[in-house]
Amino acid sequence: MKFNAVKPEDIQYLGSIVGKENLVAGDDIHEDFSHDELGDLKKFPEILVYPKNSEEVAEIVRFANQKCIPVTPRGQGTGLVGASVALHGGIMLSTARMNRILELDEENLTLTVEPGVLLMEIAAFVEEHDLFYPPDPGEKSASIGGNINTNAGGMRAVKYGVTRDYVRGLEVVLPNGDITWFGGKIVKNSSGYSLKDLIVGSEGTLGIVTRAILRLLPRPAKAISLLVPFPDLERAIETVPLIIQSKAVPTAIEYMERAVIENSEDFLGKKFPDSSSDAYLLLTFDGHSREDIEKDYEKVAHICLNKGALDILISDTQERQDMIWSARGAFLEAIKASTTEMDECDVVVPRNRVAEFVKFTKVVEAEESLRIRSFGHAGDGNLHVYLLRDELSKEEFNKRLHKSFLRFYQKAKELGGQVSGEHGIGFAKRPFLEDVSGSIQLDLMRQIKRAFDPNNILNPGKVV
Amino acid sequence: MKFNAVKPEDIQYLGSIVGKENLVAGDDIHEDFSHDELGDLKKFPEILVYPKNSEEVAEIVRFANQKCIPVTPRGQGTGLVGASVALHGGIMLSTARMNRILELDEENLTLTVEPGVLLMEIAAFVEEHDLFYPPDPGEKSASIGGNINTNAGGMRAVKYGVTRDYVRGLEVVLPNGDITWFGGKIVKNSSGYSLKDLIVGSEGTLGIVTRAILRLLPRPAKAISLLVPFPDLERAIETVPLIIQSKAVPTAIEYMERAVIENSEDFLGKKFPDSSSDAYLLLTFDGHSREDIEKDYEKVAHICLNKGALDILISDTQERQDMIWSARGAFLEAIKASTTEMDECDVVVPRNRVAEFVKFTKVVEAEESLRIRSFGHAGDGNLHVYLLRDELSKEEFNKRLHKSFLRFYQKAKELGGQVSGEHGIGFAKRPFLEDVSGSIQLDLMRQIKRAFDPNNILNPGKVV
Repeated sequence: MKFNAVKPEDIQYLGSIVGKENLVAGDDIHEDFSHDELGDLKKFPEILVYPKNSEEVAEIVRFANQKCIPVTPRGQGTGLVGASVALHGGIMLSTARMNRILELDEENLTLTVEPGVLLMEIAAFVEEHDLFYPPDPGEKSASIGGNINTNAGGMRAVKYGVTRDYVRGLEVVLPNGDITWFGGKIVKNSSGYSLKDLIVGSEGTLGIVTRAILRLLPRPAKAISLLVPFPDLERAIETVPLIIQSKAVPTAIEYMERAVIENSEDFLGKKFPDSSSDAYLLLTFDGHSREDIEKDYEKVAHICLNKGALDILISDTQERQDMIWSARGAFLEAIKASTTEMDECDVVVPRNRVAEFVKFTKVVEAEESLRIRSFGHAGDGNLHVYLLRDELSKEEFNKRLHKSFLRFYQKAKELGGQVSGEHGIGFAKRPFLEDVSGSIQLDLMRQIKRAFDPNNILNPGKVV
Repeated sequence: MKFNAVKPEDIQYLGSIVGKENLVAGDDIHEDFSHDELGDLKKFPEILVYPKNSEEVAEIVRFANQKCIPVTPRGQGTGLVGASVALHGGIMLSTARMNRILELDEENLTLTVEPGVLLMEIAAFVEEHDLFYPPDPGEKSASIGGNINTNAGGMRAVKYGVTRDYVRGLEVVLPNGDITWFGGKIVKNSSGYSLKDLIVGSEGTLGIVTRAILRLLPRPAKAISLLVPFPDLERAIETVPLIIQSKAVPTAIEYMERAVIENSEDFLGKKFPDSSSDAYLLLTFDGHSREDIEKDYEKVAHICLNKGALDILISDTQERQDMIWSARGAFLEAIKASTTEMDECDVVVPRNRVAEFVKFTKVVEAEESLRIRSFGHAGDGNLHVYLLRDELSKEEFNKRLHKSFLRFYQKAKELGGQVSGEHGIGFAKRPFLEDVSGSIQLDLMRQIKRAFDPNNILNPGKVV
C-alpha cells in the first residue's frame, strides 16, 4: 500500500470543502484522535475534518480517492479494536458534526438520523414519543454510525436482536464519492444482493454511512429486573440454557462476578444492591403490563432457585433498575481503572457453551499467570473477557496476552463461535479473524473490499 | 456467455456422483422442470440431478465449474420470477432429496435443516415442540432453501420480520466446490463482512445452500384474527398507518377485495365467512394469553370502526382462523385459475404509501385496459399485483403487461419502494431492478457476483 502524504495544498482544498472552522491539521490535532477507547494502538491522522453533510463527505472522499490519501471515518472513538485509528495517517473524517435527528415517521415507525447522533440521544428522543430503539450497548456515548459499523449488540439482544435488525436503510458515500441509498423505509426487500447488510458491520471499510433509517418499536410499558446471586459462577451460567429452554423470553441475561462488581463500586463510588455472593445473573423482562411478564419471570425465578440460586432480588422501580444497569454499564471502565493496561476479547459462542468458555478463561488465567476478568451477555453467548497487565512489564504482558488470545479464539472456534460478537475486527483482531473464519471466507471478503474500494483508501488496514 | 453442452460422458460422471437413480437426462425430464410456478419462461435443463448431501453438491458444482456447464439450483419450483429455470440448459440441481430435519437444539432454540425441507414440514415439526418459526409465506409447499434464497417474507412480517431475521447460519457450496459455513448457532456476530446476509436473497447465484441453522421462538399460546369489512378499499388501506401509529403490534395485516375473495371461493369450493363488502382488512394478533393481546386488538377494532369499518368479525378458534387463512393462502392460485395467463408484480413501498399505490393500480387497469387484481401485506407495504391476460392475444397482453410494469415500478421508485418485497428478481424482473436501484448498485452487485463466481456457472442470467 502506497499512500500519499497530505500536502499544504490538500489542506487548503479540504478547508474549501468543510470550512476552516471544521478542520484541524498536524500538531493541532488533539491526542484523543490518535487512539480509540482501548488506547493501545496509537497513530495520529495528518488532518482531521468535520463535514456537515453527505455532499461534503462525498467531496472529501472523492478527493482522497484521486490523491490516494487514506480516509479513516470516526464516530466517538469508543471502539475497542482500533477501527477508528488512522493507521496510515491521512485524513480522519469525523461524523461528530453530522449529528441531527432528521425525521421521526410515526406511520412507518422509523427514525432517520445522521451518523454522529449519540446512542443516548436516540434513546431519549424516542422515549419522549413512547417509542423504543432496542439495541442497547453498554457505551451510551457511542455514535449511531459507529454502532452500525460494528453491528453493535448490547444487553437486549436476547429478545430484540442486534443493530442490523433495526437498520432499514442507509445512505452511503462510496470510496469513489458516489452517494447512494441501500434499503429505505421499506419493511421487506428481495431486490438483489443485500448491500445494506454488507455495510452494517463493515467498520468503515466499504463506504461511509451518512444517513440511517432506523426501525423503532412501541415502547414496552413495564420492565422488571431480577438480580440473582449464586454460590459460584458455574452454577449461574449453567442456568442460562435452562432459561432459554423454558421458553421464557427475557430481554437481557447478564452474568457478573463479585470481583467485577467491586471494581464497579470503587469506580462509581456507589454500592451495588448486593455483592456478598461470588456470582450473579442479572435479568430483565419487559412487556405491556406486569401481568404480561409475571408468568415469565416467576418461571425463571423457580429455575434459578432449583439450580441453587441464593436469593431473587426483584427491582421493579425505574430507579432501582437504573442503579443496577448503570453499574453494569460501567464495568468496562471500572476494570480499566483497576489496572495499568488491558486488552479484550469479545468472543461469541452458542449460548449453551458460555459456561464452558468461562471455565476455560479461569484455566488460561492460571496457566498464563495473567489476571483475567470477564462479564457479559450470557443470554446471547457474547462474552467480554479482559486481560489485565497490572504490574507486568509491557513486553511480558504482550507475550502472555498474545498466547492467551490464541487460546481463547481457538477455543471459540472449537465451540462453534466467532472472533467478535459486537466489537468488530478493526486492526487488533485481524489475524484471529483469518484463523477462525478461514481463508476461503477471507478471500471473499477481500474481493468484496476490492469491488467497493479498488484503491484501498477507505480505512485501510482494517478488517481484511 | 459461452457454456458447454452436457455430453454423454458428463452424464456418466454425474451419475457416478449421485447414483443413477438420482439423475434424469434429456427427454426423460418432466415438463414441470422446464418452468416455475408462474410458468411463462420455459427452458429445459439438459440433465437433472438429485444430490443427497453437501459433498455430492460440491462435487457436482466443482465438475460443472471445470467444464463450464451452468448449474441451476432448484427447490420446489414455486417461484414466480424464473429464478429456478435453467435458462442456459446445463445441470439442474434439485435439493428435493436433501430434505432432512437434522437437529432441534432446544438450548439454543435453533433448528438445523437441509434445504429441501418444506416450509409446512418445518411448521408442523416445531409446533410439536411448542416452538415457532415465524416466516409464513402463502406457499407452504415451498422449500426452505428457496425461502432463504428469496428472503421470503410472508404474512407475519409486520411483527416478526422476514426469513433473513431467522437465518443464524448457512452451509454453502461455493461455485468452485468449496464447502463453507457462514454464521452458526451464534446470536451475535461482528466478525468481518456478513457473507451470510449476502447469500440470503441471492437466488442461487452466489452459492448453493446445503444446510441452514434457523432461529426459533417460543410458540405464542394464543392468536386471534379479525376480519374487518370496509365500504371501499381506500378506506381499508388508509386505516393501516393509523394502526401502526397506535403502537398496537399486529402479527399480520392483509388487505383483500371482494373480487379476489370470490375467485378464492370458486377455486376452493368453500364460502368465505363474509363477502358482502367491497374490501377487507384481515388482522392477526398473537401473544401469551388472551388478556395479553386483548388491549391491542380492542384498540385496533376502535380505530377501524372510526375509519368507517362496517363490522368486526372476531375469529378466536383455531378452526375459524384456519378457514380464513387458508382462503388467503389460495389467493394466488385462485386468481391464476380465473384467467388464461398472468404475470405479477411484487412491489414493496413504505407502509404508509400502500393506499396510494393501490389507487394507482386502478388507474393503470383503466388506462391500459388490462384486468388487474391485487392483494397483499398491507402491514408491511408489500403488494402482490396480478396482471391478467384473459381473452387478449399473447402479443397484445405482453405489450400492455410491459407498459404496466414500467408504470408500476416507476411509481414504486417514486414512493421510496423497491422492485421486490419477497419474490426476488430472478430472470423476469432484471431490467426493473436496474431501473429502480440504479447502475451504481448494479455494478457493485455484478462485482460481488464475479468475486463468488468468476466463471458465471451458478444460475447464470439471474438477478444481475
